[in-house]
Amino acid sequence: MSEYQENSTLDHLFNPKTIAVVGLSTAPDKAWLSECYITPMLEMGFHGRLFVVNPKGGHIGGMAAYSSLQEVPGPVDYVVSLVPAHHTPQLLADCTEKGVKAVQFYTAGFSETGVDEDAHLQAQLVEMAQRSGLRLLGPNCMGIYCPKSGIGFCPDFPKEPGEIGLLCQSGGNTGHIVRTVAARGLRFSKVVSYGNACDINERDLLDYFVEDNDTQAIAAYLEGTTDGRRLLQCLTRATSHKPVTILKGGCTEAGIRAAATHTGSLAGTDVLWDGLFKQAGVVRVSTPEEMADFLVALLQVRPPRGLNTCVVGIGGGANVLATDDCERAGLTLPPLPDHILSRLKHIIPRAGAMLRNPIDAFPLIGAPSNWRQLVDLLNEWEGLDLVLFQNALGTPPLPPRYESIAPAIEPMLSAVAECRVPFALVWHAITNDDSWQASLRVQGMSVDRGLPFFTSMRGAALAMRRLFNHHASMPGNVDLQ
Amino acid sequence: MSEYQENSTLDHLFNPKTIAVVGLSTAPDKAWLSECYITPMLEMGFHGRLFVVNPKGGHIGGMAAYSSLQEVPGPVDYVVSLVPAHHTPQLLADCTEKGVKAVQFYTAGFSETGVDEDAHLQAQLVEMAQRSGLRLLGPNCMGIYCPKSGIGFCPDFPKEPGEIGLLCQSGGNTGHIVRTVAARGLRFSKVVSYGNACDINERDLLDYFVEDNDTQAIAAYLEGTTDGRRLLQCLTRATSHKPVTILKGGCTEAGIRAAATHTGSLAGTDVLWDGLFKQAGVVRVSTPEEMADFLVALLQVRPPRGLNTCVVGIGGGANVLATDDCERAGLTLPPLPDHILSRLKHIIPRAGAMLRNPIDAFPLIGAPSNWRQLVDLLNEWEGLDLVLFQNALGTPPLPPRYESIAPAIEPMLSAVAECRVPFALVWHAITNDDSWQASLRVQGMSVDRGLPFFTSMRGAALAMRRLFNHHASMPGNVDLQ
Repeated sequence: MSEYQENSTLDHLFNPKTIAVVGLSTAPDKAWLSECYITPMLEMGFHGRLFVVNPKGGHIGGMAAYSSLQEVPGPVDYVVSLVPAHHTPQLLADCTEKGVKAVQFYTAGFSETGVDEDAHLQAQLVEMAQRSGLRLLGPNCMGIYCPKSGIGFCPDFPKEPGEIGLLCQSGGNTGHIVRTVAARGLRFSKVVSYGNACDINERDLLDYFVEDNDTQAIAAYLEGTTDGRRLLQCLTRATSHKPVTILKGGCTEAGIRAAATHTGSLAGTDVLWDGLFKQAGVVRVSTPEEMADFLVALLQVRPPRGLNTCVVGIGGGANVLATDDCERAGLTLPPLPDHILSRLKHIIPRAGAMLRNPIDAFPLIGAPSNWRQLVDLLNEWEGLDLVLFQNALGTPPLPPRYESIAPAIEPMLSAVAECRVPFALVWHAITNDDSWQASLRVQGMSVDRGLPFFTSMRGAALAMRRLFNHHASMPGNVDLQ
Repeated sequence: MSEYQENSTLDHLFNPKTIAVVGLSTAPDKAWLSECYITPMLEMGFHGRLFVVNPKGGHIGGMAAYSSLQEVPGPVDYVVSLVPAHHTPQLLADCTEKGVKAVQFYTAGFSETGVDEDAHLQAQLVEMAQRSGLRLLGPNCMGIYCPKSGIGFCPDFPKEPGEIGLLCQSGGNTGHIVRTVAARGLRFSKVVSYGNACDINERDLLDYFVEDNDTQAIAAYLEGTTDGRRLLQCLTRATSHKPVTILKGGCTEAGIRAAATHTGSLAGTDVLWDGLFKQAGVVRVSTPEEMADFLVALLQVRPPRGLNTCVVGIGGGANVLATDDCERAGLTLPPLPDHILSRLKHIIPRAGAMLRNPIDAFPLIGAPSNWRQLVDLLNEWEGLDLVLFQNALGTPPLPPRYESIAPAIEPMLSAVAECRVPFALVWHAITNDDSWQASLRVQGMSVDRGLPFFTSMRGAALAMRRLFNHHASMPGNVDLQ
């Protein structure tokens, strides 16, 4: 179905004037679905009109339900379907009659089950939609999250919009990715959980995001495609306009089988996908966390001109491991130049310090004002491309609570803002609840100051390497990864 | 210094009758050191006598200080030194006169600085110790944590003893590793942060742990050694008695340089280390988290007889990614046998489910009693070696708080205890604070029930593969990794 000129029809997904949610149950064990498909619109202030339809009438999610779609006053642009699969043909007929522009099917039980009759039912919906020009999203998907329009399906997603467009074949992974990325201080323009992709597919959505002025970077979780050649064209076009990062699910033999049963996708072999992504200039990642890391690097870190990296942080052993992480990711840690080293000795007392690269700034806990001098010194290091400031929050001898680590954090945070070399912060967060709570506070301080941060050195180093490769590949569109 | 017969002298480290802590400062910004070297002994109920020595007298950490070591009444077995480096020769002379058996130097500023005079000072200490027969731990280290004896250096380390012996060249990484492993419900017999290893080194400690009845598994963080040949012998002997897992810091070019400045270690090339570990049958890990994962697998999971794995969990996309993680780690996910599949269809409704391997048990949220039937079915699957039950806590449509996920967790937890196939739980914890808090609760429930758990599928799969390889290599001592 994908043609560039048809993409305007997707506007109904993101900017409907009227939404009707059909099939929300009044049963107590289904009440959570109202929190998905009513609460977010109310809380984010959906600008259009919102209706609930249920044959039994009554109140659902605090709203009076209409007993049928036809009873809803005025036109309806967009329908969210939660009716059982066998009722979907009737619903679609009702939608056509009502002049609905697009239907999203939360409803599952179609081609993903691997049962012939379910696949036939899906094909029937597609045929009906093609006849009427109505667009289908899903089935077997969560739908649309568009904070600018006040549309969503998870009550805890951020209410404020951002610059990332995400298309995601899995509803659960949409939650995982949005929450992981949001916790890093980033926000989304538009997010689409598109499931079985019986009509609107990843090519349509890529094309839409390329044209969408609110979207500066495109992220995707794909399980498969029905047209690899067209996908390559769409991706190549997309990357020539905006950076694209993709997490491919179903890479291994069993993963491919799993993708087939999850969203009915033809997953193809991983070698094929890898070639496709490389050819198109896509930055491929392997986990939702790596996706969040790359997006932080892409949107918040100034692109390094090379790979010469200095690691500065608290803790000897943590710095040794950090160094290994950096070099494994392909960053290089050159020794300190002599003139830098000789001046560093006046800034950091030598006992308990490592005055090489990495620089263990442990003694600066006792001389916090020297942090600024240390950053000034790094600014004077010719040929230095990147600084990673780190603190392994789980390492201190005292319980790793914020109060214990503050003397090592606050002067560092104030000083790094003056760093003229591209830089990022690394707060190694995960050890136990103490270090996690401390990291949440430090992460919040980083977000407030607009400073890019990562939660592991491994993640940071990989993201910085990908950022460098991405920018190095830009002019001639050669992917170095 | 290392000879097996000398190891009994190390008992003074773990079972001293008297400890004197020398050089604790009364300055407010050094008060935290009392929390390291006084508080843990008091809180864990050190069975011997504890003294504080400070030339200025006064009270430190709530204890009256003696003005010199000689004034301490009766013999002193073990001294913790926090005196500045240039005072250490005098302290060592005092220790010799007092008949002290072992001294731990928290004091830094020796060979790790790379400055000649500092290295000379360290050599002078070693020479003095060798003349008197006194043993030195460190310098530049945190010392001993032995909960059974009531000795420690971090007030938040667990008070109850366990079965893991840890030797760790970095003080900070000791904190990181102990906290990470403890958060998984495991405990330690004895932990030694040994720093520059000027006298007591990794070979001595390995030999000691081999003989130590309280230690069932040996874990180590090494930065280097001064005698690779002897280390190989010690490791080979150790692995023939107890499993040994090692995290090697300083693997890359800059990492090796960093290790040299951190603990003055000769780090050697990584290829060399890898060969040494393989030859000795050591299970090598790359991060503290991987070490925790392997220890959980080793100590809590029944060894699988093969690699045939079934993944069972909630969420389609999460299961697709889980499958990829498993197969990348070398586990295999065979398709469900037909007779299992046909019976599974009666247990799990097909809409929204994946009835292959992985099994997406999402519909069981509405039919919790079927979990038990599902586990019974897995028990009947001939040739199945391992089950990984997972829940990606960050994926649900509602905010991932415990109350939301409980219907997906509690019946699963009750049922898995009946699984007769080796199994583990995977609680993917890290998305945002909601999922972290939920995971803490679920982790706690797992610990209470004695169920092994991991916090990522990637970590779980890698640990299970290592567990299989470890056991497969046991008879002929051939390392398959």
